[in-house]
Amino acid sequence: MQKRTMLYEGKAKRLYETDDKDLYIVSYKDDATAFNGKKRGSILGKGAINNKVTNHMMQLLEGEGIPTHFVTQLSETDTLVKAVTIIPLEVIVRNIAAGSLSSRLGLEEGVHLATPVLEFCYKRDDLDDPMVNMYHIKALSLATDEQVQQITSYALRINEVLCSYLRDLGITLVDFKLEFGMTSSGQLLLSDEISPDTCRFWDTKTNKKLDKDRFRRDLGDVEAAYQELLSRLMGDA
Amino acid sequence: MQKRTMLYEGKAKRLYETDDKDLYIVSYKDDATAFNGKKRGSILGKGAINNKVTNHMMQLLEGEGIPTHFVTQLSETDTLVKAVTIIPLEVIVRNIAAGSLSSRLGLEEGVHLATPVLEFCYKRDDLDDPMVNMYHIKALSLATDEQVQQITSYALRINEVLCSYLRDLGITLVDFKLEFGMTSSGQLLLSDEISPDTCRFWDTKTNKKLDKDRFRRDLGDVEAAYQELLSRLMGDA
Repeated sequence: MQKRTMLYEGKAKRLYETDDKDLYIVSYKDDATAFNGKKRGSILGKGAINNKVTNHMMQLLEGEGIPTHFVTQLSETDTLVKAVTIIPLEVIVRNIAAGSLSSRLGLEEGVHLATPVLEFCYKRDDLDDPMVNMYHIKALSLATDEQVQQITSYALRINEVLCSYLRDLGITLVDFKLEFGMTSSGQLLLSDEISPDTCRFWDTKTNKKLDKDRFRRDLGDVEAAYQELLSRLMGDA
Repeated sequence: MQKRTMLYEGKAKRLYETDDKDLYIVSYKDDATAFNGKKRGSILGKGAINNKVTNHMMQLLEGEGIPTHFVTQLSETDTLVKAVTIIPLEVIVRNIAAGSLSSRLGLEEGVHLATPVLEFCYKRDDLDDPMVNMYHIKALSLATDEQVQQITSYALRINEVLCSYLRDLGITLVDFKLEFGMTSSGQLLLSDEISPDTCRFWDTKTNKKLDKDRFRRDLGDVEAAYQELLSRLMGDA
């Protein structure tokens, strides 16, 4: 399967058409950005790690009944995925207060939330991806009620599966971001990536951050943390 | 009924205990603030106008089956109300894009929303009253599910009643903010105020703003606009 026209270049990935209109190739980059592109840099090896971590997570979730866009890994940084039209919502699931939730609601980072918190943000870089609720989603026709209901159900189930899986590896899933898309035949699929770029992973014993916060906050050891996360998932840590 | 200990002084009102533990006196001030207190000023006669407008609206809503804290007006600026503990949520209902909705979601001011939009904000001046959803409300125990459900139902009904009533007076209800409280016996009541300080009222023909945006945006004629709004409600315009 060959890459054809590039459809999209994002902060961390490129997306290509293939000769099959129902399949795309996603290609992960080492480029790193934070704060909606205000901070830029590069994390050596990140593309290959995020490709492998995402594919590992997607296969785990497929096994638990969550339909995903994953088809097959093509190379270190490239993966064949089902073609979808992305629903313009970032779906954030939070178990522990951190990042924007801490600053917005005045909760100290590390506070365990009484129940998982789901947030929807409107994917609009020019607006800094503002948080929206069901009424905004309806008024702006960002998704149908049925899509929101299905996404909510999948997101909470994904949280259960990933929390349980990662707990056994000594990793606490603090929060993560999901994106969903629709195939041309109308199937809702988990899309995008699940990686240290899009999740907060803390070592359960030490609370050491194994994710992009090391880059965002200049904590150092960025490459090593990404590598450690991958190694734990692959069982060779 | 006499004012006793002052319980609270806000940006636009003072609240006093009375000799009856189930009754408070609210006293409206001419002080005006905007942008969470960053802009300060005074609107001559505002206290008396907002007192009258609020009481007029509360009585209208009582007649439509919405329980409110209103008891009786005591003077130009003072009103006797039922004592409640305020639920720490600002409930915003929007029919037309304006203010923070316009800037946050990139909607031009004046765009009619396909359906009314309800927003909940966490009443925390130090955090600029951040928007919250059902999950945040639950995780932070800001209100019970039952309270949120009842508030939602009241807020949408209040919007219907006020839109219809104001339409006949040539006024478009763009958006407004509500607060609710619980009595010691556990009854949920509409509280706070419904006035040009807390609503956006536009003249239906000219779109002239008859509300606090005249102060916020330095549009002039602030006192006259408040007076015109009151006169239209009282039927002597």
